[in-house]
Amino acid sequence: MNSKDNMSDNQINIKFPDGAMKQYPLGTTGMQIASDISEGLARNAVGILVDGKTLDLTVKLTKNIEDFKILTFKDQEGQEIFRHSSAHLLAQAVTRLFPEAKLTIGPVVEEGFYYDIDHPPFKEEDLTKIETEMKKIAKEKLPVTRHEATYTEAKKIFKDNKYKIELLEEFEKENPNEKVSYYQQGEFKDLCRGPHVPNTGVLKAIKLTKLAGAYWRANAKNKQLQRIYGISYPDKKELNQYLALIEEAKKRDHRKIGKDLELYTFHEYSPGSPFFFPKGTEIYLQLMNFVREEYKKRGYEEVITPLLYDKELWETSGHWDHYKDDMFVIKVDDREFSMKPMNCPSHALMYKTKTRSYKDLPWRVADFAPLHRNELKGVLGGLTRVRKFSQDDAHIFCTEEQMQQEIFDLLDFVHYIYADIFKMEYEIGLSTRPEKAMGEPELWVKAEDALKIALNKKNMIYKINEGDGAFYGPKIDIEIKDALGRKWQLATIQLDFQMPLRFKATYEGEDGTKHTPIMIHRAILGSLERFIGILVEHYAGKFPLWISPEQVRVLIIADRHQIFADRVVEELKEAGIRVTKDYKAETLNKKIRNAQLDQVNYILVIGDKEEEQESVNVRTRDNEIHGTKKLEDFKKQLIKEIKDKK
Amino acid sequence: MNSKDNMSDNQINIKFPDGAMKQYPLGTTGMQIASDISEGLARNAVGILVDGKTLDLTVKLTKNIEDFKILTFKDQEGQEIFRHSSAHLLAQAVTRLFPEAKLTIGPVVEEGFYYDIDHPPFKEEDLTKIETEMKKIAKEKLPVTRHEATYTEAKKIFKDNKYKIELLEEFEKENPNEKVSYYQQGEFKDLCRGPHVPNTGVLKAIKLTKLAGAYWRANAKNKQLQRIYGISYPDKKELNQYLALIEEAKKRDHRKIGKDLELYTFHEYSPGSPFFFPKGTEIYLQLMNFVREEYKKRGYEEVITPLLYDKELWETSGHWDHYKDDMFVIKVDDREFSMKPMNCPSHALMYKTKTRSYKDLPWRVADFAPLHRNELKGVLGGLTRVRKFSQDDAHIFCTEEQMQQEIFDLLDFVHYIYADIFKMEYEIGLSTRPEKAMGEPELWVKAEDALKIALNKKNMIYKINEGDGAFYGPKIDIEIKDALGRKWQLATIQLDFQMPLRFKATYEGEDGTKHTPIMIHRAILGSLERFIGILVEHYAGKFPLWISPEQVRVLIIADRHQIFADRVVEELKEAGIRVTKDYKAETLNKKIRNAQLDQVNYILVIGDKEEEQESVNVRTRDNEIHGTKKLEDFKKQLIKEIKDKK
Repeated sequence: MNSKDNMSDNQINIKFPDGAMKQYPLGTTGMQIASDISEGLARNAVGILVDGKTLDLTVKLTKNIEDFKILTFKDQEGQEIFRHSSAHLLAQAVTRLFPEAKLTIGPVVEEGFYYDIDHPPFKEEDLTKIETEMKKIAKEKLPVTRHEATYTEAKKIFKDNKYKIELLEEFEKENPNEKVSYYQQGEFKDLCRGPHVPNTGVLKAIKLTKLAGAYWRANAKNKQLQRIYGISYPDKKELNQYLALIEEAKKRDHRKIGKDLELYTFHEYSPGSPFFFPKGTEIYLQLMNFVREEYKKRGYEEVITPLLYDKELWETSGHWDHYKDDMFVIKVDDREFSMKPMNCPSHALMYKTKTRSYKDLPWRVADFAPLHRNELKGVLGGLTRVRKFSQDDAHIFCTEEQMQQEIFDLLDFVHYIYADIFKMEYEIGLSTRPEKAMGEPELWVKAEDALKIALNKKNMIYKINEGDGAFYGPKIDIEIKDALGRKWQLATIQLDFQMPLRFKATYEGEDGTKHTPIMIHRAILGSLERFIGILVEHYAGKFPLWISPEQVRVLIIADRHQIFADRVVEELKEAGIRVTKDYKAETLNKKIRNAQLDQVNYILVIGDKEEEQESVNVRTRDNEIHGTKKLEDFKKQLIKEIKDKK
Repeated sequence: MNSKDNMSDNQINIKFPDGAMKQYPLGTTGMQIASDISEGLARNAVGILVDGKTLDLTVKLTKNIEDFKILTFKDQEGQEIFRHSSAHLLAQAVTRLFPEAKLTIGPVVEEGFYYDIDHPPFKEEDLTKIETEMKKIAKEKLPVTRHEATYTEAKKIFKDNKYKIELLEEFEKENPNEKVSYYQQGEFKDLCRGPHVPNTGVLKAIKLTKLAGAYWRANAKNKQLQRIYGISYPDKKELNQYLALIEEAKKRDHRKIGKDLELYTFHEYSPGSPFFFPKGTEIYLQLMNFVREEYKKRGYEEVITPLLYDKELWETSGHWDHYKDDMFVIKVDDREFSMKPMNCPSHALMYKTKTRSYKDLPWRVADFAPLHRNELKGVLGGLTRVRKFSQDDAHIFCTEEQMQQEIFDLLDFVHYIYADIFKMEYEIGLSTRPEKAMGEPELWVKAEDALKIALNKKNMIYKINEGDGAFYGPKIDIEIKDALGRKWQLATIQLDFQMPLRFKATYEGEDGTKHTPIMIHRAILGSLERFIGILVEHYAGKFPLWISPEQVRVLIIADRHQIFADRVVEELKEAGIRVTKDYKAETLNKKIRNAQLDQVNYILVIGDKEEEQESVNVRTRDNEIHGTKKLEDFKKQLIKEIKDKK
């Protein structure tokens, strides 16, 4: 049935996301449809989605619509409209308070919106004033209206703003025969493509968050502008939740905690490359050892590989063409070498050192080699964006027949690490064949099926990202959620049909002929540096016992307790516990407080009673008092807790 | 007493190494003195040492001599004369057999001697002929005589040899008024400074070992010459011992064993950078873990550091001026960076991240970071000369007062590792203040005393290498002896007064003022890569259980034994044993043989009896039959053997 068939002269057919079809008079607006559905929807509506395009709620609809949606803040597109209108609100408030200010551009960003303004530096108190003015304008409930103008008309309207004139001239050059649109709310007009919320009253909860400098067109040769950042929500509660989350995230900032707990540091002599202090190194090594234990159980073999390779290797792997700018290139023996940004080519070389039979496969080869990527200096930050890092990286060379079992085992591995050990929720995305894929289509089908079957067999819910696979094969991406609900893409399982071909890697099949193995790229923690950064924020520095750099600290009440306290330290040390002592001449309370600030899991106090009974008085970093325990029992408890990775 | 006082007209006084002084008639020769002392000495004498200068035995002595020694092969100088005369013998034999051959030069090298000859390539059988001829000439007992000549006379003698003419012209340019010497034995004359053995009969045991190509003056633009290598000893027995050692060393060559046992490999894409296969990686990690355990016991703290640093760091440390050519330099962010060749500057930076008090010292900071040194491609070889390696590197920052105890503890650490764990002998050298030393002389005295006191307190015998210290401080070098008696310089303990100054590192002393700490650079295994290469040769691939990559292999007599065998494998694996299984359809004998070739420490055979009794039948890689043991007992035995590092 063609939707046209159903169209009477003055009616249009509109199809909703749930598949329902409804007729409306020609010229109906989105706002009218929203009101027709429910008053609440009309109140929350910010725009409409018409066959993939966002539009103002006030636009008159004149055609049948196959795909129609009323957008609210809950929709990604709705949120963008809302925040974009918030930027206009900001601009209007600035113009009211600082008439000499020249507006430039005001886009939506991941965390809110900003507006770049040509004006002498604002002060913190200006922000408060502007915010108050914004709230006032919101209360005025000014209708936001769209207007079209010729370039000549538009230039007249914005004649006092050289930035808008520059933009207009640019648009004119690109599309000389089109008109431009601007939006108006009250006295305020801004050049804009839209769409926008129907009136300023919708913008109820707004907070200006930050002042920064910026350059017109991000060019440092241009004049410096003032950038005002803000965040906005449809209601106060959501805004407050967001602000609380930001506050908590700030407290948990791994750069801050890393410094407070002496876990790691950075130095300008090696940008983006962390220095791990002894305590940070302890966490690093515990994670590595944990993964190594799993490797032994799961049939992985570890290798140690060079870091510097001749350009020829990168030409073979394809990195020279596609990744050269991200590699550190060095001249060696009059040839170009580069520091490796990933391990796969090293493992392909090792695979090829001998003839392999299907009986030798799968070969699961793991490598913690430090990798180097020439990230731009500007984007480096803490442990989450670094130039030097190591991954719990492994590659699995396997036959087509083995692929599915390997993926199944990998999903198990992922679940074990994230759900069982780190108690983190995670989400799975399956990315399928992109348009520009390489390799036989039937192999793609097989591979995607293998991934799906493995996911289904493990009863895992997953999202399909159609066409989002790498050109060399489909992949599974795992996004974990930390304690603040923030999502991080960490684990990845990628099938690769291309690299083995490029390296001419083969194995002898059961049929006696040569076949090309499939290569699975997989990392579960991903970059250990990044993972540690996330763990620090996830636990807010309160590491579970098994990875805690300082598990126990022993304090004494009086000097005479040193001998027994030393014995406690030695016994725990011999049991592999990371234990320290603090016999300093300070008050017991101060020493307990220090141990708690250092996030030591268990604080033991030794006095007469403890010495007499061969026991220890136990409290935690959260000041839970566990009381006096026999040293032997406490030691056993620790060993069990570490073993259980609780 | 002046020795001149004692000199009568026709007598000279000669002082021997034991301090004895003896008179001889003016014009006495070394040979006559040797005969005077003993017939045996006369038979073995090859030259004399006169006040530090080596001379022929036939030289007439005409002055009092303060320091006289008859040289035999046992003396370093005597060995050189002996081998140099062997090269002449080789040249004479070649000239007899191949009259068209043109001699060039024939020096002594560490392992014997060679002669470079302008001649079309020799064949292997030519070597045998030449060797036979050499033995014949030796039997002829031709006297070797020294002659002097003017340049004109010499050029006449060597007129048919353009190489010797070229050398003569060069000598003449340097010393136009001197004469040159040549040596003659039978019909053969060679331009030579000498000295030489008195007659060819002394050269009893000779072996030509190798043919190689070489260029005149090591310049590839010149004609290629034939280099014949040889080795010689005063008797057959010593020669055979040497040849047997060479043979054994060849069998133990770590490049060969590394390949046979699949421990590591190399690839032209990363010259001088080993790829460790899983088995080699196992050894590597076991060594690292072992050192880490010791670090925990001995109060070291491990850190993880960046590999790439801004040139400014190297300028501060002094490496940019003195070491730049050995570093890999990279352009990053328009600045020069380099990959670190050593860890000390990284640790100096970390030291400086906080204020330190004398109470925080000593700080012992350990680092296994991979280091890179741009060794010339030509000198790279196996694991002993590499471009990428990691050390069991640590730096100790301490006060002057702590220095001696630290050195004492380090000597203990060295002894524990080499004597107790690896059962290797070692020798100690103490290198003292060089002429161009930096730092206060009194600090040098204190530091050298600290080293000596520590060595004496540990009852250690050591050699003093006067003036051989680094410019920044005195040091202790430790040379270990492997199973073949070859010496390797591995451990080092270096005091450094300069680096802390350069980095302006300080600590607050007990007196409340700032002091500069002393930095001790120390490594015990040294480069892990090199150490593994040495271990492979030391053990000839038969690693002791604790570092053995494959400790146990389980074989079955029939398929029905798989279930119990699997249980054995699982139980051992859970106990941390590195165990594999071989259930292949081959004969038991072949599988035992394979396990032995793979140097598996224990080979377990499972049959009906073993299954019934929950036991295993144990044999070793050297085919020692240990018989049937209860699985539980065998497991305990393994765990103990690993723990004891036997």
